[in-house]
Amino acid sequence: MKRIDFPERENWEGILKRPTQTVSDIEGTVNTIFEEVKSGGDAVVKKYTERFDGVSLKNLKVTQDEIQKASESVSEGLQQAISLAQSNIEKFHAAQRTERVEVETMPGVSCWQEKRPIQKVGLYIPGGSAPLFSTILMLAIPAKLAGCSEIVLCTPPDKKGEINPAILYTAQLCGVTQIYKVGGIQAIAGMTFGTESIPKVYKIFGPGNQFVTVAKQLATKYGVAIDMPAGPSELLVVADNTANPAFVASDLLSQAEHGADSQVILVSTSESLINDVEKEIEGQLKVLPRASIAEKAIANSKLIQVKNDQEALDLINEYGPEHFIVCVENEGFYLDGIQNAGSVFIGNYTPESAGDYASGTNHTLPTNGYAKQYSGVNLDSFMKSMTFQKISREGIERIGSAIELMAEAEGLQAHKNAVTLRLKRSK
Amino acid sequence: MKRIDFPERENWEGILKRPTQTVSDIEGTVNTIFEEVKSGGDAVVKKYTERFDGVSLKNLKVTQDEIQKASESVSEGLQQAISLAQSNIEKFHAAQRTERVEVETMPGVSCWQEKRPIQKVGLYIPGGSAPLFSTILMLAIPAKLAGCSEIVLCTPPDKKGEINPAILYTAQLCGVTQIYKVGGIQAIAGMTFGTESIPKVYKIFGPGNQFVTVAKQLATKYGVAIDMPAGPSELLVVADNTANPAFVASDLLSQAEHGADSQVILVSTSESLINDVEKEIEGQLKVLPRASIAEKAIANSKLIQVKNDQEALDLINEYGPEHFIVCVENEGFYLDGIQNAGSVFIGNYTPESAGDYASGTNHTLPTNGYAKQYSGVNLDSFMKSMTFQKISREGIERIGSAIELMAEAEGLQAHKNAVTLRLKRSK
Repeated sequence: MKRIDFPERENWEGILKRPTQTVSDIEGTVNTIFEEVKSGGDAVVKKYTERFDGVSLKNLKVTQDEIQKASESVSEGLQQAISLAQSNIEKFHAAQRTERVEVETMPGVSCWQEKRPIQKVGLYIPGGSAPLFSTILMLAIPAKLAGCSEIVLCTPPDKKGEINPAILYTAQLCGVTQIYKVGGIQAIAGMTFGTESIPKVYKIFGPGNQFVTVAKQLATKYGVAIDMPAGPSELLVVADNTANPAFVASDLLSQAEHGADSQVILVSTSESLINDVEKEIEGQLKVLPRASIAEKAIANSKLIQVKNDQEALDLINEYGPEHFIVCVENEGFYLDGIQNAGSVFIGNYTPESAGDYASGTNHTLPTNGYAKQYSGVNLDSFMKSMTFQKISREGIERIGSAIELMAEAEGLQAHKNAVTLRLKRSK
Repeated sequence: MKRIDFPERENWEGILKRPTQTVSDIEGTVNTIFEEVKSGGDAVVKKYTERFDGVSLKNLKVTQDEIQKASESVSEGLQQAISLAQSNIEKFHAAQRTERVEVETMPGVSCWQEKRPIQKVGLYIPGGSAPLFSTILMLAIPAKLAGCSEIVLCTPPDKKGEINPAILYTAQLCGVTQIYKVGGIQAIAGMTFGTESIPKVYKIFGPGNQFVTVAKQLATKYGVAIDMPAGPSELLVVADNTANPAFVASDLLSQAEHGADSQVILVSTSESLINDVEKEIEGQLKVLPRASIAEKAIANSKLIQVKNDQEALDLINEYGPEHFIVCVENEGFYLDGIQNAGSVFIGNYTPESAGDYASGTNHTLPTNGYAKQYSGVNLDSFMKSMTFQKISREGIERIGSAIELMAEAEGLQAHKNAVTLRLKRSK
């Protein structure tokens, strides 16, 4: 890890820079596949599934029979663990439901706001080495709570044309309505345009590699919304001498094992804590099965010593970490002052992996500094807010002349007329 | 207007198609200006201001003196009208504030959600024939209520290098912190990258022409969020014989005068109502100052007769109108059933222009069918939701083994270790 002691503010931007991603060379491929899927539908999706996933599929849709069989092969212990996580995630997301907001802004002028579900949503779950069934919990549970009527899931098949049983089990458990064996660009294109098998959806959620990320960005050009732009996962820990160095090291490593491009940062006012964490990382790293991945991420990562808490907080807000662990005596200072973070983990007994799986919070969070302007996925991500208004004769008499004046000043006579006519008739 | 009687469902898609926009030929220009502004800053912004707005500016930033003078030139009547609108918009948006959501999902596992302001936001206000000061009310009021610390406004200057006084007056009144004389692509690029004068912002709001729309879309590639993708304004009215045909016609025309590409649709089960509205439109259209614009929009627009309320509702949900006026006896049927609409106006005395200016609801709404997945601008548009969690020793003992099992099943050993270490030490 890189050690940086007392960096000057003018150097923060450089120090906090994320490993850059180059996407421009991918865009051509993504555009081509989108155009082909748009016109060719299922046949094109199958062609690319054969090319990228190495399997020729007859049917893209997972059958009820496949789901049944998969479910039976998930161990009882894992089923119970998933069920505990499900219960906590449901509790926390159900509590996010907001009531209708109604205000009579003036006598006779009633305005209200209501949230209604996005009817058709698509969830993308990557395949590869780690079957991310936990992400299904994080996306399908709030989608179901929101009342989305179609919850479509796409995930790439393995070389035998199968999906990991834990993925099928979790999808079924959480109310996914349809599952398709399709991954990568062709999955995002399929949900953007619709094919003979795959339904067109209104909003696409979920993580993915650079191809999926660029494909989601392109989907927005065709009118599909996405949860947020994605980037490599990251963690920033602020810790002092009340923190347990072994715990801090384990959290930094849990983030580092995600990928070689993950980034982890430790910020501290304590030199001894930094020293202790560095030693702990060396020891713990060796025994990890994904040590080679974690090692690369750790090489990119930083141990930053700062002068005081205020400087630490300013630096953290400039970075805007996806995950932010606060392990300090005066935690209130950081909790009050943090402006830009996806999710915050407090104290020695709150590992980031708790939020990744089972505490109840969502793990689909803004990376790459996007915590400055994007929310993590929450119940509202699956709804849209609509406004309503009803004005009485009395109401239009009260606000009518203001509208007339403003419409006229904007040069919009027909806007004014719509009021003038009503004011005449209301007398 | 085009009359369509009892269309078959399979033809709805074609009938409801919006006038298409071609943006691909604009993209090159937008890309070039972005690249230039990124490297050249103010000098490039000034170059394009001279080219597109026909004025050579020394300073981009509006001075306090200019604001003062402008404010003095706004009539007292208009000031009062703006003040009434401000008060209603404030009331309605302040009521949208949500409390912190806190849940103990299991004993010892506390999770909460809080919303914090997006620190730096940019508001784009178009220039041109209509000075849209009302849009400043709609964007700056919720930005201020949310607690955004920098509220930057960009709007193009006229040929004399000046900004319409009503725009400056309203901006100052609603808490805009900085105003810049810059419009079009160069404004969006300036707020995306920052220049010597213009600050970089985290999220850009506001309407604009096709160039601005494409520029906002490009800004998202550079990590800036936007309010929503934009398209021409539109209105759909559902009305029966309890509706006043003159009022309905005036609403359709108020939308039509926005631009030649605006679209208005009347849906009704009543042939006589459709006939009456058609006649009213002819009469009212003639006397409008913007008749030539409205005429073109009206030519694109549709009067659709349907069999019954259910068919009307299905068709409206498929269209997803930006503005939706409900003027029928059984209004409850539509209010309960509407899934996709930006803002809903109910009854004979609720013209769309009330919501455009002064009732309290926001007029920045999803067009182009985006009501299926996007919210109109509201208080939350200026905030992001963050989650927090704090787990006690007891808490980690309760959820620890579930996390261990799930992490292991996903092949993420370091995630498991972070818990295992804590479980060992907590004994």
